[in-house]
Amino acid sequence: MSANKNINLTMLCDFYELTMGNGYFENGMTDRITYFDIFYRQNPDNGGFAIAAGLEQAVEYIRDLHFDADDIEYLRGRSLFSEAFLDYLAHFEFTGDIWAVPEGTPIFPREPIMTVRAPAIQAQLLETYLLLTLNHQSLIATKANRICRAAEGRVVLEFGSRRAQGADGAITGARAAYIGGCAGTACTVSDSVYGVPAGGTMAHSWVQMFDSEYEAFETYCKTYPTNATLLVDTYNSLKSGVPNAIKAFNNVLKPLGITNCGIRFDSGDMAYLTRKAREMLDAAGWPGCRITVSNSLDERLITELLLQGAKIDSFGVGERLITAKSDPVFGGVYKLCAVEDADGNLIPKIKISENLGKITNPGFKKVYRFYNRETGMAEADYICLHHETVDDTKPLEICDPEARWKSKVMENFEARELLVPIFKGGKLVYELPDLKDVKRYCAYQVSTLWPEVKRFDYPHNYYVDLSEELMALKDKMLMERRG
Amino acid sequence: MSANKNINLTMLCDFYELTMGNGYFENGMTDRITYFDIFYRQNPDNGGFAIAAGLEQAVEYIRDLHFDADDIEYLRGRSLFSEAFLDYLAHFEFTGDIWAVPEGTPIFPREPIMTVRAPAIQAQLLETYLLLTLNHQSLIATKANRICRAAEGRVVLEFGSRRAQGADGAITGARAAYIGGCAGTACTVSDSVYGVPAGGTMAHSWVQMFDSEYEAFETYCKTYPTNATLLVDTYNSLKSGVPNAIKAFNNVLKPLGITNCGIRFDSGDMAYLTRKAREMLDAAGWPGCRITVSNSLDERLITELLLQGAKIDSFGVGERLITAKSDPVFGGVYKLCAVEDADGNLIPKIKISENLGKITNPGFKKVYRFYNRETGMAEADYICLHHETVDDTKPLEICDPEARWKSKVMENFEARELLVPIFKGGKLVYELPDLKDVKRYCAYQVSTLWPEVKRFDYPHNYYVDLSEELMALKDKMLMERRG
Repeated sequence: MSANKNINLTMLCDFYELTMGNGYFENGMTDRITYFDIFYRQNPDNGGFAIAAGLEQAVEYIRDLHFDADDIEYLRGRSLFSEAFLDYLAHFEFTGDIWAVPEGTPIFPREPIMTVRAPAIQAQLLETYLLLTLNHQSLIATKANRICRAAEGRVVLEFGSRRAQGADGAITGARAAYIGGCAGTACTVSDSVYGVPAGGTMAHSWVQMFDSEYEAFETYCKTYPTNATLLVDTYNSLKSGVPNAIKAFNNVLKPLGITNCGIRFDSGDMAYLTRKAREMLDAAGWPGCRITVSNSLDERLITELLLQGAKIDSFGVGERLITAKSDPVFGGVYKLCAVEDADGNLIPKIKISENLGKITNPGFKKVYRFYNRETGMAEADYICLHHETVDDTKPLEICDPEARWKSKVMENFEARELLVPIFKGGKLVYELPDLKDVKRYCAYQVSTLWPEVKRFDYPHNYYVDLSEELMALKDKMLMERRG
Repeated sequence: MSANKNINLTMLCDFYELTMGNGYFENGMTDRITYFDIFYRQNPDNGGFAIAAGLEQAVEYIRDLHFDADDIEYLRGRSLFSEAFLDYLAHFEFTGDIWAVPEGTPIFPREPIMTVRAPAIQAQLLETYLLLTLNHQSLIATKANRICRAAEGRVVLEFGSRRAQGADGAITGARAAYIGGCAGTACTVSDSVYGVPAGGTMAHSWVQMFDSEYEAFETYCKTYPTNATLLVDTYNSLKSGVPNAIKAFNNVLKPLGITNCGIRFDSGDMAYLTRKAREMLDAAGWPGCRITVSNSLDERLITELLLQGAKIDSFGVGERLITAKSDPVFGGVYKLCAVEDADGNLIPKIKISENLGKITNPGFKKVYRFYNRETGMAEADYICLHHETVDDTKPLEICDPEARWKSKVMENFEARELLVPIFKGGKLVYELPDLKDVKRYCAYQVSTLWPEVKRFDYPHNYYVDLSEELMALKDKMLMERRG
């Protein structure tokens, strides 16, 4: 985000991508076609699903891939790379194919959310930035979705820029929070650049700047009669803040016929304060005054406050959203799953691990989501090899890859492919949707998940099953490795 | 960091800074001189101190402050701001003063680490970005310092880009990690732009790309005989990885007379694997082969591994460092502490809170650090009003502001001011040190802290005391508020 440093994101790669790239180049593997999957292994906060986000920034990155003269100069200075390889980089061009799930899609562990098919050096180079942007935005979109679900339809605003992990964390973080369900942000540039609605009224400093709290409120109401949300906790919320707010509303807004206004609490016990404030505002004839709270909120505290009868119309959520504080890492990985031989035949690849869950699914794959035709609800995801096709006019038996005796027959279902083509032969073939449409799509897709999957504590394990052919391939490769 | 979007960081402000700015402008407060302190309230991970970082990016931001034509156009579209204010923004210039602690300085809760003195609108506008950049980099520098102290002199490398919270989180995160003590990073652009040494060799995909693990290792050693660190856990670390590595070293490096090489484990039990691998390498005549590990490490696990006799030469630390996973928020705040009246007289300001620790220290202040002249060790920090001077040739009694019966007489001490002038009348008056010097300065300053302050669990509370005059002012203002 360093506007002051002219940073080329192509150079935001792990250095080993370059040493490997030069190694492929020097060993005749430049044109070897490779397939890499991006997937993750565990839902943040032990939730039942995650929300995919960050694809638009991944696309921008791919379209801008290039090495500047000073990048080449830096690399030459490292004395590790051949001149021929540096020349290759100087003329670098992405010529591969990419498939991905659209932003806003609910996703589940171990299923590919992006697949890259490209010559080895190209595919290797993309690893860090693709992971970074999908990991970051999926993390925040997922957290925002949890918080918004806890708020049960009330407005949630993203307020966390000052505690974000870097400028980009604030800006694209606000974008991801919007996808996940937030109504807007405090971050101005996220609005001017990405169209995330930005808003805000006053900090404590505004109140402190005047000789009295009342004077601060009155002045604000006069300056912004239609946008007056007054921060009432600078001195004493109930003894001074709320009474002064009511006085300012009465003296400034009432004569103008304005009934739309608000107060905000940024400290203290939100359950007690908002119940008392609601009574005071209603008794004073301000039932339309909205109450906003904004102090160390997350989905847990919001759930508790609502259970305790807090009277809250909107939540400003800061550090715990913009850093996903309770679980701040989204663990997407980038794993080789196949290569092509010189004749274009697919050779599946596998990564073994002592940890069962860390063994990768080999081969070039695709993912279906099965929706029940009657209820419209998502019932299971189904990973198969790319050449396989699901015929959803017939029943299909699916089984849990880690507990194969658990099987289920899908009937009366519609199978929709999750990953869509994004790049084809290096060309963008995907029309990036408007951010508002991404947000709407996300809300709709989340509504197709059963409540059991959306529960915060011990949610139901949504089925992500493997096709018989894929399972057989995986078994065969594991046996070969053992033998 | 969006290289693809031309982002102006001046617009990375909370929207309320603009509504307040317009409010100050419209109400005759444009030229009101204000003082804001940045300080934080709690050390991350319940540690004994933090490390200040991010000043260089704050300086770059201040120097680049401006509103572009399209920023003004966006703001005009919001229908909240007067044309006169928009014209003011179009000609915006920072004319204020800034003091700050140099990067790499150990800092403590509640003491100012930056003070901004500027006309109200200007000072207000800076809030979000200054907090963001100091919070983020101080968070990562502090975490890196903890991890490096746990490693007890062994090399620690920052490996976390792919899990960072946005591009800037990776890039300036690697910079902050370097200040805190890391020897280098995997993030290429942090080297080319900031000079953080970047390095790396291979991922699992390199190994998978070849028909056999040995072929992958042999090819790598031939391509990079002086930079061969082989990743040995793709298939089976001890049965296949380490033996194949030894074979490749014997066949390729030995004939070249090279004894410098390495292996890396990225999964499995690091204590067991590294002890076994060390034996195998030594027995095979490779005592100079370095062992690197890199799987979900942080200061706790590193401490435990070393206690268990793990044979590790260097640590690659990823997601738990780059997101400060165990405590991912640095809670710096930006609080009004004084204004000047029309005659230039200082009027101190205070923010009250029901929470004792949240009450601010009023007035324009400075901070001394007291070093014992005999030991060179830091004994206490001392916050006083800016016009006060400490005479360190005489004993000085200091007392705990929250437990005033606890006092201590400082003798034979040297008082050094912590905050230094950065901007004066809008002009940069500070020479930004080289990043290597910042890192060295940090290491030296941390060495002046007693081990008791550096302990991870229940560290000693370092003294941060207030001058008598400051305490009297605070008491007086609190009493006035009550009255």
